[in-house]
Amino acid sequence: MTAKIKYTKGTTAPTGFLASAVASGVKTPGSDRPDLCLIYSKLPTVSAAAFTASKVKAAPVRVTATHAKSTATRAIIANSGNANACTGVRGLEDAKRMATEAATALGLKQREVAVCSTGIIGVPLPIERITPEIPALAKKLKERGWTQAAEAIMTSDTVRKTAGAKFFVGKKEITISAMVKGSGMINPNMATMLCFIATDANIDKATLQAATSAAVEQSFNRISVDGDMSTNDTVIVMANGAAGNRTITNGGSSSRLFRQALNAVTLKLAKDMVRDGEKATKLIEIQVKGANSHADAQKIAEAVSNSQLVKCSWNGSDPNWGRVMHAIGYAGAKIREELIDIYFNGLIATKSGLATDTPIDQLKKAVSGPEFTLCIDLHLGDADYTAYTSDLSEGYVAYNRLEYAVKTRR
Amino acid sequence: MTAKIKYTKGTTAPTGFLASAVASGVKTPGSDRPDLCLIYSKLPTVSAAAFTASKVKAAPVRVTATHAKSTATRAIIANSGNANACTGVRGLEDAKRMATEAATALGLKQREVAVCSTGIIGVPLPIERITPEIPALAKKLKERGWTQAAEAIMTSDTVRKTAGAKFFVGKKEITISAMVKGSGMINPNMATMLCFIATDANIDKATLQAATSAAVEQSFNRISVDGDMSTNDTVIVMANGAAGNRTITNGGSSSRLFRQALNAVTLKLAKDMVRDGEKATKLIEIQVKGANSHADAQKIAEAVSNSQLVKCSWNGSDPNWGRVMHAIGYAGAKIREELIDIYFNGLIATKSGLATDTPIDQLKKAVSGPEFTLCIDLHLGDADYTAYTSDLSEGYVAYNRLEYAVKTRR
Repeated sequence: MTAKIKYTKGTTAPTGFLASAVASGVKTPGSDRPDLCLIYSKLPTVSAAAFTASKVKAAPVRVTATHAKSTATRAIIANSGNANACTGVRGLEDAKRMATEAATALGLKQREVAVCSTGIIGVPLPIERITPEIPALAKKLKERGWTQAAEAIMTSDTVRKTAGAKFFVGKKEITISAMVKGSGMINPNMATMLCFIATDANIDKATLQAATSAAVEQSFNRISVDGDMSTNDTVIVMANGAAGNRTITNGGSSSRLFRQALNAVTLKLAKDMVRDGEKATKLIEIQVKGANSHADAQKIAEAVSNSQLVKCSWNGSDPNWGRVMHAIGYAGAKIREELIDIYFNGLIATKSGLATDTPIDQLKKAVSGPEFTLCIDLHLGDADYTAYTSDLSEGYVAYNRLEYAVKTRR
Repeated sequence: MTAKIKYTKGTTAPTGFLASAVASGVKTPGSDRPDLCLIYSKLPTVSAAAFTASKVKAAPVRVTATHAKSTATRAIIANSGNANACTGVRGLEDAKRMATEAATALGLKQREVAVCSTGIIGVPLPIERITPEIPALAKKLKERGWTQAAEAIMTSDTVRKTAGAKFFVGKKEITISAMVKGSGMINPNMATMLCFIATDANIDKATLQAATSAAVEQSFNRISVDGDMSTNDTVIVMANGAAGNRTITNGGSSSRLFRQALNAVTLKLAKDMVRDGEKATKLIEIQVKGANSHADAQKIAEAVSNSQLVKCSWNGSDPNWGRVMHAIGYAGAKIREELIDIYFNGLIATKSGLATDTPIDQLKKAVSGPEFTLCIDLHLGDADYTAYTSDLSEGYVAYNRLEYAVKTRR
């Protein structure tokens, strides 16, 4: 089955999608770096979405969730530099204004436009810099605008993040292209993970939403370092049917193929976000096996991946299994200490809860590279869970010591 | 009522208690810094205890919990430098051996001796360095040994931590003396908070246990930065009745006085631990008010006090209320964003979920000192909760990057 899917860099929009970006000055007044983008489907779409679970939701999340509930999303307008979060009634008005102006420029209904913002929290959106740029954004829309749009949503990201897939349904080739920004909750000061996915697949709405929810669960939700999403996190998937394939519906083999491709694309982007986590130097895959329940496996994976002290160890390439045991201990899951095995990149560090005689130099080497796997086998049951995390560096602290006081000049 | 209690530095043992310390070489072979101590009551005692809630419990915790269940604790033997955690059957044997040898030297039953260890996890305890020192420890016992014992349990602590109180029950003066080590879960690589409290009060067992549980809840449990205790955390309170007061029993005014004194002593020590947190520069008191329930107030206080990003802000003296809102949002408690007020040292930064016009320089000043209060008013109900946290510094990461690989030479 895998052979049927070709994975791509996702640098071009699927058939029927256009994109554009401009420098509005929201992020840095006077800069020519793009910070405002537009994505548009020439054809009608079906769409799916996932939003932050936080109870503090940014204005654009509230507006877009309402829009997405009533109508398929056919365009996305997004800015970086300001999250339009904790901005009250004015924030809601600003978010609606962005959607309305984009809809006017594109000849769409306001509800067909999703609006997303990412950046600092609690500072009113400089809407006066955004609205004058919208007509130009609409005019600049083109097939090759996809990568510029991916650049416009970057905040502390150091690399543009796109990924894609191509596969056949019957004789019709389907393209999925995705862009993402942020480093999830590793990097929540910019308060957002945004992921925009476009596909020319012909797919029904329920199938698309189910595939989207499943894809988010096994990718973006697995890198949640604080155990939750931030105020602005948004995933939007638009499908416009331009490929002309027979409609993909739940249960069919084409549905399985679509899900497989979407899962791989989102997991790739999720890992890319961890790799690009602020001042992070490592990507660690945490596999918990042999748990009594899925919930227990998840609790342990999240406790270990969120432990400040464990993450410090990774930074120092220190195979400190004692700290891992410590995090397992407070995870609140059922365990039996004397059954636990811990492996670093397949090398056993802990057997039945005790240190092994694997030489420390070998263990150090196992955790020294830019990526490694930590496997925790609880030997209690059949449930497992995988999470992804980064190390915690001095650079992270230095980078995050100052933000609000610097960016607000009152 | 407060006027009745005199708070002291707790540097001397109450009547009838003796203590001693030696350098056994467990922490640093060849060093003359004490790392092994003994505390002993010449008179029979009643005692109370509290242990880590972690499911990975160190051997001494298991042994001491069993002892404390069956018999009053009359002596404590404790070492620093090795936590005797994740050490299996051998660890249990070593912990029992420590208790047995101390009991023999003191003429007590093994069950009357509590044993505590603090230090690195997963490395067998060098019991062969400990047992030969026990007879000398017993011989050196003296009234003035209390501060040396407090020094012997220090690990990454930079200051010795003791506190005490004196008050009258009738015409008899009661003394409480307490020592603590660790920085709670701010500093869990040494895997332990240990707190030993001695009092010459005459008090019944149930009253002492209730007072101990209440004291721990409002002090040591409030500084839990990872939301949980570590593998070795132990609090032991011994009362020997040497003051000759009428027995303190639940419900009486002397019981209220005892509780008040014990609460103040433990809270003082809890705050001292945060102040002395590894490379921490600030103590922040987080007050959550107006919550719908105690549980909700606690969730929010803990989410804010554990947020890596919020703690980075404190380090930079950045009054970043947006990050506080972000942590409130993912805490899982009932909130209404538009009702939330946030104060730094009484200065309002956020009113009804929005930035106020309090000048940023004033807010910066409010969070610039070594201690400040963050107050979050949810305006939903009457429940409140207070927690204590520190900032997160580059120094913390630098200090914690390497431990296991350095300390284990295989």
